[in-house]
Amino acid sequence: MHTYEIIRKKRDKKKLTQDEIEYFVSGYTKGIIPDYQTSALLMAIFLNGMDEEETFSLTLSMMRSGKVLDLSSIPGVKVDKHSTGGVGDKVSLILAPLVASCGVKVPMISGRGLGHTGGTLDKLESIPGFRTDLSLTKFVSILGDIGVCMIGQTQEIAPADRKMYALRDSTATVNSIPLIASSIMSKKLAEGADAFVFDVKVGNGAFMQKEEPAMLLAKNLMGIAKRFNKKAVALITDMNEPLGEAVGNSIEVVEAIQALKGKAPSDLLEVTLALSAHMLVLGKKAKNPKAAEKKLRQAIVTGRALEKFSELIKRQGGNPKVLDDYRLLPWAKHKQMVSSDKKGYIQSIDTMKIGLSAVKLGAGREKMDSRIDPGVGFLIKKKVGDFVEKGESLAIVFANDVSKGESASMEIKQAYQITKKKKTQLKKILFFVNEKGAKKFHSSI
Amino acid sequence: MHTYEIIRKKRDKKKLTQDEIEYFVSGYTKGIIPDYQTSALLMAIFLNGMDEEETFSLTLSMMRSGKVLDLSSIPGVKVDKHSTGGVGDKVSLILAPLVASCGVKVPMISGRGLGHTGGTLDKLESIPGFRTDLSLTKFVSILGDIGVCMIGQTQEIAPADRKMYALRDSTATVNSIPLIASSIMSKKLAEGADAFVFDVKVGNGAFMQKEEPAMLLAKNLMGIAKRFNKKAVALITDMNEPLGEAVGNSIEVVEAIQALKGKAPSDLLEVTLALSAHMLVLGKKAKNPKAAEKKLRQAIVTGRALEKFSELIKRQGGNPKVLDDYRLLPWAKHKQMVSSDKKGYIQSIDTMKIGLSAVKLGAGREKMDSRIDPGVGFLIKKKVGDFVEKGESLAIVFANDVSKGESASMEIKQAYQITKKKKTQLKKILFFVNEKGAKKFHSSI
Repeated sequence: MHTYEIIRKKRDKKKLTQDEIEYFVSGYTKGIIPDYQTSALLMAIFLNGMDEEETFSLTLSMMRSGKVLDLSSIPGVKVDKHSTGGVGDKVSLILAPLVASCGVKVPMISGRGLGHTGGTLDKLESIPGFRTDLSLTKFVSILGDIGVCMIGQTQEIAPADRKMYALRDSTATVNSIPLIASSIMSKKLAEGADAFVFDVKVGNGAFMQKEEPAMLLAKNLMGIAKRFNKKAVALITDMNEPLGEAVGNSIEVVEAIQALKGKAPSDLLEVTLALSAHMLVLGKKAKNPKAAEKKLRQAIVTGRALEKFSELIKRQGGNPKVLDDYRLLPWAKHKQMVSSDKKGYIQSIDTMKIGLSAVKLGAGREKMDSRIDPGVGFLIKKKVGDFVEKGESLAIVFANDVSKGESASMEIKQAYQITKKKKTQLKKILFFVNEKGAKKFHSSI
Repeated sequence: MHTYEIIRKKRDKKKLTQDEIEYFVSGYTKGIIPDYQTSALLMAIFLNGMDEEETFSLTLSMMRSGKVLDLSSIPGVKVDKHSTGGVGDKVSLILAPLVASCGVKVPMISGRGLGHTGGTLDKLESIPGFRTDLSLTKFVSILGDIGVCMIGQTQEIAPADRKMYALRDSTATVNSIPLIASSIMSKKLAEGADAFVFDVKVGNGAFMQKEEPAMLLAKNLMGIAKRFNKKAVALITDMNEPLGEAVGNSIEVVEAIQALKGKAPSDLLEVTLALSAHMLVLGKKAKNPKAAEKKLRQAIVTGRALEKFSELIKRQGGNPKVLDDYRLLPWAKHKQMVSSDKKGYIQSIDTMKIGLSAVKLGAGREKMDSRIDPGVGFLIKKKVGDFVEKGESLAIVFANDVSKGESASMEIKQAYQITKKKKTQLKKILFFVNEKGAKKFHSSI
């Protein structure tokens, strides 16, 4: 088999066989096929696409490039959730202990902040002592003991994907549906879960700005899951404003804890409950989403969900006292109000701008090796459809550097579009997608 | 400026500015921009194209990446010819001394065999002692003295093109009109000629199989030449059968010498005279192609053209006695007939197959570092439209290894399609293209 011929085929819009894809992926992982041939192939895939079968083959080869966990020793259905990323998306922090407290095992391997979006690992690590770099053995052991564990991708999981992702990141080939789908699925499948719930975000603060590619990605994920005999559903959810109020690390942890105490902003609660409910159904702990929601709300009310988070923090080396004393989390020195210059209804929020502004403030990484400042962030007080008086606060900025805080305030202000026209709130859950197809989302779940 | 952004723009089918192209080409040449980003950009260019202005910018940047010769000290118009390559294309060997013998200066920087096609340098080097690796200073000096010099691309000429070509060759991005056009033109412009005649070959033995891309390439070349204020014309010529009879190195040199002695196969003579005539017109040594042809035929009849070739060989270190004694050239040990299995008219010849078979026999390089065997090759006795009896010879194979010779015989036989249907000979010159556009070629020139 010739590397050149494989590139040429994809360049000419021809379908690659499973053998050709395996040859390429394993050759690239081992360093036999050089970066420059791989980036040419990736650009050809970006521009000419891959069909469902090719995407499946790519997923399979990337999954097999590393260790594939066997969780069969742990009884029950193991269900994981994956989000394509957004601004203020702290759902995993609430959902993982919440779902585990209802009896479904949640093996979760998460990522770090990427571009303008935050990352679950970065948020968790703002809890003093919390370790996300556990070995896979430890991961399986904690999962077996308490039904949930949250770690980062280790060197052993899908190394082909890690190597290829870095290359895509520097060659403008990240934003390709088959490449995104196979990257997500290869890691998720390697972690050994039985079923998956996907949160595909769409809007001006997501990687997919439009519904069409988001829908296509969801369908791709369903297609791959089906070929691997895994159950999966996806919700397509809105990301045209930050989710909840908090944007940052410590600050999002607090909002997640508050949610587990029954005090979540309504949009955050809605999305979290919907995703969690589908996990309960897939995990056979509820007959339907409606029954699942009831169980989930009870787990919050009774404190079982919060208790599960406490166990998780303890087992992963963190200090569970943060649940009661938020001062144990790192906090920024300065608090700055962002007040509105005019009165009216919030028409839109440039969510990407908010996310990038948080990264600049220190909540994310501008370069691969930048250090995160866990104490900084925003509280977004006004959302789309809200009314604001002139001088009323749109948001609060938490900064360790006053001038950086002022820049962020300015950027937040610029992100808001305010006019006199009345505006309804944004619908948060747009579509439900499973292997049978997509349908518009009507009821609360 | 960001390398990433430039890749992204071309990926999204946007037009690159001259600054962006210059940034990329100079960064790549200096080794600041890595191969893997360049190959991603090249694939994006391959698939999304480049307009005339971008192609001009790319040519300019590649030309400027090295030395640009100044031939203004040499009086008269300097005219070069370039062929896109074919099988049995020994036109340069005849045309360069022929045109120079009519008073036009011919500064020619040629290439080696590529893929299934032969290369002028490889052919010239089968003449004992002939050096094609002269310095640019020597090149200019010989050109000034005798009006013609034929060398290979030196390290100083368009290094960006050389580096990029090697990358294209391993990433399936060679066959792109703007990349081919800028690669050809950057080298041609760097050699300092005032005007160019292009021979764009089309057919089953050319890099362009169809008329449409060949026409597009010709128009691209005209467009670039015009932007550089250089005169240029192109002929689109047939490559659905080898040109002339000889395919190989020594054997093509002999056919070229024979042509200079007035004994060329008619198709080879037709193409050579047509290209040469346009060089004479561009070089202001003839008013029109018809008058030029007369001069050219006289130069052959009087022996002046052959005499010019003799001077050229002498000045470039070769032994001019080969002109009279072909045994001074390297010859293969074995001569094998390829006889026809059936009687009928030659309908078609798979010229690519003939070319590849010659490469396998040793006339070209299977790998970059393979050594050429200058003595091997073919004599193609039957061309499209010819009648052949069963048992009559289609071709003669010259081999140094009997079993390799037998394989070649088999392949040549397979390349011929013979049926009882009458078939006309192939038209050799299809279109004439200049800055005003293309027209079908009717008269002999």
